[in-house]
Parts: sequence; structure tokens; C-alpha cells
Amino acid sequence: MDPAKLLDILGNENRRKIIQLLANRPCYVSEISGRLGVGPKAIISHLSLLEQAGLIECSVDEQRRKYFNIANNVRLEVSVSPYSYTMALQDINFDREKKRESYAVENNGPATRDESSCFFLKLSERLRELRIKQEELAQMQKQLQAEYTELMDKCLDSIEDIARNPVECELLFELLKNEATAAVLCYNLRLHPSIINSNLMDLAERGFVEYTIKNSQQYWKICETGVENK
Amino acid sequence: MDPAKLLDILGNENRRKIIQLLANRPCYVSEISGRLGVGPKAIISHLSLLEQAGLIECSVDEQRRKYFNIANNVRLEVSVSPYSYTMALQDINFDREKKRESYAVENNGPATRDESSCFFLKLSERLRELRIKQEELAQMQKQLQAEYTELMDKCLDSIEDIARNPVECELLFELLKNEATAAVLCYNLRLHPSIINSNLMDLAERGFVEYTIKNSQQYWKICETGVENK
Repeated sequence: MDPAKLLDILGNENRRKIIQLLANRPCYVSEISGRLGVGPKAIISHLSLLEQAGLIECSVDEQRRKYFNIANNVRLEVSVSPYSYTMALQDINFDREKKRESYAVENNGPATRDESSCFFLKLSERLRELRIKQEELAQMQKQLQAEYTELMDKCLDSIEDIARNPVECELLFELLKNEATAAVLCYNLRLHPSIINSNLMDLAERGFVEYTIKNSQQYWKICETGVENK
Repeated sequence: MDPAKLLDILGNENRRKIIQLLANRPCYVSEISGRLGVGPKAIISHLSLLEQAGLIECSVDEQRRKYFNIANNVRLEVSVSPYSYTMALQDINFDREKKRESYAVENNGPATRDESSCFFLKLSERLRELRIKQEELAQMQKQLQAEYTELMDKCLDSIEDIARNPVECELLFELLKNEATAAVLCYNLRLHPSIINSNLMDLAERGFVEYTIKNSQQYWKICETGVENK
């Protein structure tokens, strides 16, 4: 799934509530409609949108009633900061049926009631540990993002020391965020290719930028080996 | 900021494009309107929504033209999986002005042109390292989410082994995801308090669940000490 698509979906409060309900348990349309206090027609239209996106799927129970459950396993990260806006969607792919089978074979099922109890409590303990780890990782990412912004602040000060004109300033700032082709730089800075190129050449001569060839295109970036060479 | 509020904001494609532009550089209304091919009236209404949410702010340049830039530093994480739907918004608080000052004092600014160049390249190297770390953490979080879902699958199988009736099944499943008061369990499972309570008592007697008191409320959870006691 495309992250933009997921953001479009999550941009609606009722759709978020539906996902919340389904993450708790599979539900029928009437249940969802009752819980949310929203007419079944609107619920059905939200559900079909979610289904088309592959986020949920529907099954039919013994009484031939349709119920819906979450079919996907995704993780979306968006960060908005003064120097960056990124969104990334990770598909947590794993073959659930296969995993369950392999587990069944490995274990042959716990034999006695006591073993079953013990096994269940162990699993539950492990779930708790995972939640703690997730929280720790989130904290680490928070710190990284703070450090990133702080570092960009310092870089901006530093650029002012080394750039000889405003175009060089802009070029160094762009390349700090991402390597780029001259064409992309022209577009982003809205400057003529000749100006971009002559400034890039100057910066390259002074050891600040260099290029690499990828897919037969010239990508400019801040020098990686610059520190060691000095 | 509330994560739901940010999702409402990000649910619109043009607002996402505006944030993208401003993360690159501060912009005037006319610039944004030109780049997006959207009339200034619509842009202004998006901008005022973003400003109200505290995501952007506006300043006035020497020619008294208003320009906008990103004012906040936030990180949003949403995960949707068969057993969980979570969203978390982290505010990356840090006092930018203070940090810049302390940096200036520490360093007194690099003295020579050569020192400046070297300093800039070092900062850029550090930025690159941070990006790699961020990517590594994202991969770790992806693996944790996969393991979490897999573990929940196993837990569901395990619950079937130990539960004596469907209500016990539901209760154990609910408590695996989160500790909860009896009232919340009644609401989530739509069962009468007397049924919930008698089943909780039974599960507690068999060593599966226990309660703790928080804010003078009884919170039920899966036994933590169960594994060691067996």
C-alpha cells in the first residue's frame, strides 16, 4: 500500500473508529453501525473503501452473515520537522498460515493442562516484553529526530561560513538533505542550469561536493571522504 | 498535538504537498499556489488550518511579505495489524534557540576557513549516520510488529487449550491486549457484570488472571508471576 493512500483512509474519524473496532475483534456491519452511531449505509461505504485498499477483508459465518476483520499488517511513520517531512509505510509481511503450521509441528500442542497453562503465561510474558521494546525503540527514534533537527541547525550556521554566495548556500542546504541530480536542483531552486552547474563546479573544486553515477545519472552529494582528506 | 488531529490534517493531499514544500524551505502563498497549481484562496485556508494546529507559523520578510515555515517537530506512528491498532504522536521538544546559543559559546565559531570546511563536512557525515540509524530502528520496529502478530496467533491457539467456555476465551483475549477494569470488559464484550465477574474469579483461581489497584480502580491483567510459580 502507498503511504498517501493510508493517510487518505486514516484522515476520516469514522474510518479510524472502524479500524479500532476491527482490531479488537471481527465485526458485522450492524455491530459497527451500532457502536459508532452511524447509519449502515455510510458504514458500508467506508468498509468497501477499506476493503479495496486491502486493509480489511470480509468472511461469512455459519449463519451466512458477513463479518469484517483486519487483513493487513502495516506500520506507518510520518515525521514533520523544520527540515524534513518524511512518510514511510512498512508492510509487515509474514505468512500467518505457514507460521501457525510450523508452530503446530514443532510443539505438537502442549500435552497436559498444566503445560498448556504454563505455555500461555509464557507467551503472555513475551507479549509484555515486546511492548516494552517497542516503547524503547520509539523513544530512541524520538531522540534521533531531535538530534537530526539540532544538527541541521548547526549545518545552516556552518553553511553561512563556507558559502561564497546565496546560490552556494541553497545548493549545500539541498544536498545536505538529499543527493540530487543537477536537474532536480534546478527545479527545486528555480535557477538556470548554467548557474547551478558553475556553482556545483566551484563547490566541487573546494572539496565540498562530489558526484556519483547511478542509473547513468549524475547525482551530486556532499563529499563523504572530505573529513579524512583534510 | 493530538494524533487524530494530525491524521485529519494529513488526510488531505494538498495539505501534504504544502508541508512537503515548507519542509524544503519557507514559502510565500503565491509560491505554494504556483507550485501546487491550486488557487491562493484554497491555499490560504489550508495554511490557516495548519497554523491553528501549530504545525506551521508565519513571519514577515523585509518587503513585508508573509512567508510560512514549519514550526513543529513531531513524529507520528500508526500501526494497523490483525490484533492491534495504535497511533502515537511524539512531540520532539527542544529549545532551538538555546541549543544554537550553547553551540556558539562552546565553539566560538570555527576560526579559519579550513576549520569551517572541515567542521561542515563532519556535520554532514553525522547527518548521514543519523539517517542510517533511523533506518535501522525502523527495521527493528518492523520485526517487532511481525513478532507481535505471530505471538498473538500462538496465544489464540493457546487460549483455546485453557479456556473452559467462550466467555473465558474472550476475557483472556481482551486481557492479553491490555489490562482492563471489569466495567471496560463488560462494555467491550457486551456481557452482564455478573457473568464477567464470575468468569474472572474462576480464571483468577486457576492462576491465569490477577488484579492490581490503580487510582482506586481494580485493573485485571494476565498473571505476571505465573510462570515462576508453576
